[in-house]
Amino acid sequence: MKTEAVHYEGGLVNHYFDANIAFINELHDAQKIVILTDETVFSLHASSFQLFPVIKINGTEANKTQQTVDIIINELLNLNVDKSWMLVAVGGGVITDMGGYVASIFKRGIKLGLVPTTILGMTDAAIGGKNGVNVGQYKNMVGTTYRPQYILFDYNFLQTLPKAEWVNGFAEIIKHACIKDLEMFNTLSKNNIYYYINNINAIANLIEQNVQIKTSVVVNDEFENGERLLLNFGHTFGHAIENLYHLPHGSAISIGMMIACKISEEINGFYSSQKEQVAQLLTQYHLPIKISFDKKAVFDLLVKDKKRSGNYINFVLLNAIGNAAIQKISFEQLADLNEQIL
Amino acid sequence: MKTEAVHYEGGLVNHYFDANIAFINELHDAQKIVILTDETVFSLHASSFQLFPVIKINGTEANKTQQTVDIIINELLNLNVDKSWMLVAVGGGVITDMGGYVASIFKRGIKLGLVPTTILGMTDAAIGGKNGVNVGQYKNMVGTTYRPQYILFDYNFLQTLPKAEWVNGFAEIIKHACIKDLEMFNTLSKNNIYYYINNINAIANLIEQNVQIKTSVVVNDEFENGERLLLNFGHTFGHAIENLYHLPHGSAISIGMMIACKISEEINGFYSSQKEQVAQLLTQYHLPIKISFDKKAVFDLLVKDKKRSGNYINFVLLNAIGNAAIQKISFEQLADLNEQIL
Ligand SMILES: NC(=O)c1ccc[n+]([C@@H]2O[C@H](COP(=O)([O-])OP(=O)(O)OC[C@H]3O[C@@H](n4cnc5c(N)ncnc54)[C@H](O)[C@@H]3O)[C@@H](O)[C@H]2O)c1
Ligand SMILES: NC(=O)c1ccc[n+]([C@@H]2O[C@H](COP(=O)([O-])OP(=O)(O)OC[C@H]3O[C@@H](n4cnc5c(N)ncnc54)[C@H](O)[C@@H]3O)[C@@H](O)[C@H]2O)c1
Ligand SMILES: [Zn+2]
Ligand SMILES: [Zn+2]
Repeated sequence: MKTEAVHYEGGLVNHYFDANIAFINELHDAQKIVILTDETVFSLHASSFQLFPVIKINGTEANKTQQTVDIIINELLNLNVDKSWMLVAVGGGVITDMGGYVASIFKRGIKLGLVPTTILGMTDAAIGGKNGVNVGQYKNMVGTTYRPQYILFDYNFLQTLPKAEWVNGFAEIIKHACIKDLEMFNTLSKNNIYYYINNINAIANLIEQNVQIKTSVVVNDEFENGERLLLNFGHTFGHAIENLYHLPHGSAISIGMMIACKISEEINGFYSSQKEQVAQLLTQYHLPIKISFDKKAVFDLLVKDKKRSGNYINFVLLNAIGNAAIQKISFEQLADLNEQIL
Repeated sequence: MKTEAVHYEGGLVNHYFDANIAFINELHDAQKIVILTDETVFSLHASSFQLFPVIKINGTEANKTQQTVDIIINELLNLNVDKSWMLVAVGGGVITDMGGYVASIFKRGIKLGLVPTTILGMTDAAIGGKNGVNVGQYKNMVGTTYRPQYILFDYNFLQTLPKAEWVNGFAEIIKHACIKDLEMFNTLSKNNIYYYINNINAIANLIEQNVQIKTSVVVNDEFENGERLLLNFGHTFGHAIENLYHLPHGSAISIGMMIACKISEEINGFYSSQKEQVAQLLTQYHLPIKISFDKKAVFDLLVKDKKRSGNYINFVLLNAIGNAAIQKISFEQLADLNEQIL
């Protein structure tokens, strides 16, 4: 037997902060741009969509499926789109996830630009190259990791974003603060949700900081040190509660973060006073910190969780605010914690 | 506006030449390997498939579709396959293309191993990371570029390969010789198809050489110099003829290579004597060099060809045997050539 190893290349992603969507014109041959967006974003920002062909879909989570992908692919075929074209996905995470997926598989990959229009999209979903669609009840079961050419941040879109979606996005921002950035945590503590809704410079700044955090976590994790797992802070219990009680994602992970704080306090020496600070901050941003839940049902879901490996779960705990670590927790211990402290 | 560029990493692919399929056991946690193969390969080599769960599909070109992908995904879900698993695709290009595609999209990418079992698979389809499925009449309209962990070459599989598939594979080998390797061309000229069918050392050697050629073309092209286009030698007319007359791929591109040789002679100073050498070599490997075809129908298909850009086609011509170059040919000139010399 004879072996050899062949090295393949990586690539670059450009971030354009504080830009206007009109700038996409400069970023690719304007004759070869097609936009994917959802009906809501399209109707609220119709004037931004006049220059290019637009594929509009009903961008709900329930529609984030292979069936919708097939529809988009047919529209691309009708438009005679080829590999020299760029698909620009303009919308929330549902749209950037589906746009990223379609761009990655159509003719083995056409060019991709992302213009996230929600707080969650700008600080989380659009960053890191992951995309996906749901298969039956399984979320994001199919997808790829595919680099966009660019992510463009146009804060004008936020003017039409419903408050509930601001709250949703702030759950991830607070997550970033908890796991990586004490200073940002303190800044957030001094302000509140309305401050950011009404202050474009402040939100612009905050979004940039969060992009840096998520980007550096993702890029570091390419060396497979598991950094990316930190982004699951609050998501283990959060996903289980989200699935059982159909809460908004932000609300569920807010509750999940509080559970992770309690477990951190119990087994990791995380200060009770810091746990209270996290609770206070979540409340300031209109996120729930507690829900009564069926402990057995939640535990059963956890055991099925995809982050399971063997008889334990990789759980993200806080050492202190701004400082997180992965800890393996056995199902046995988790059952005890679930029984006694939650 | 503020911009930044983020660099992402590339990766490695291992080639195991002259290996036994049993070795896949050593290349990944044996509890987390699942095999994808087709019914023909499975029944001819049943003893090679005893250690792992096997997903068997009807691996014909007509079945290379999203529907078959859905079936495979359901089987992976039933087997509780997660990202720590490896899918090993064992078969011809249909199987390695579909296996590569599924591995790239299932849970955003599980690990992939390729064990090509045809000459075309070993020298062409398994190399370079491209995969795909057909959409309606469009071939490989959807797919990704996804690196396997390894490509393992087990020449034992070739013992059951029908002669027609040997011939098919030699079309691509001769293509490689024409565009890149005069010495290999001369070696091939000294031998014939039966020599390789009956001489495992000779075919092993030849496959290795061809893997090196395709690999280096693909890796070079990551710098986007268009090297990879050279692999289309014979494929422009070849694909059109294949689609119209439903010839085997190897036969169609053999005819396509002869047409490309004639055009090279006409407009590129390629020697007529070398054109005759190519014709002679193709014949030695039981490939057709001529077919009467409907010139207008073929030309209409060419105009729709995906390698079209603007009003010309990027055509691969020979300067000499072993030395190819891309030349833009306008549709006008092509229509003339089609009329006058073909
Ligand atoms: N790929 C990743 O790494 C990643 C990370 C986190 C989340 N996600 C995915 O992101 C999705 C959630 O994203 P989301 O929270 O942005 O939800 P979303 O895409 O469903 O958008 C929420 C709602 O806001 C509307 N909307 C979007 N932009 C608007 C604007 N500017 N003005 C008014 N309305 C607007 C949408 O029409 C939608 O009704 C989920 O599918 C999740 O799986 C992906
Ligand atoms: N991804 C790429 O870069 C790339 C390049 C070239 C071709 N392809 C794709 O490859 C496919 C063609 O591949 P192919 O020529 O290997 O055809 P194939 O996969 O259809 O296999 C040909 C036949 O041989 C049988 N077979 C395979 N291995 C055998 C063995 N060892 N013994 C007996 N029978 C065996 C198969 O069952 C099938 O009937 C096409 O779909 C084409 O699009 C892909
Ligand atoms: Zn989240
Ligand atoms: Zn070919």
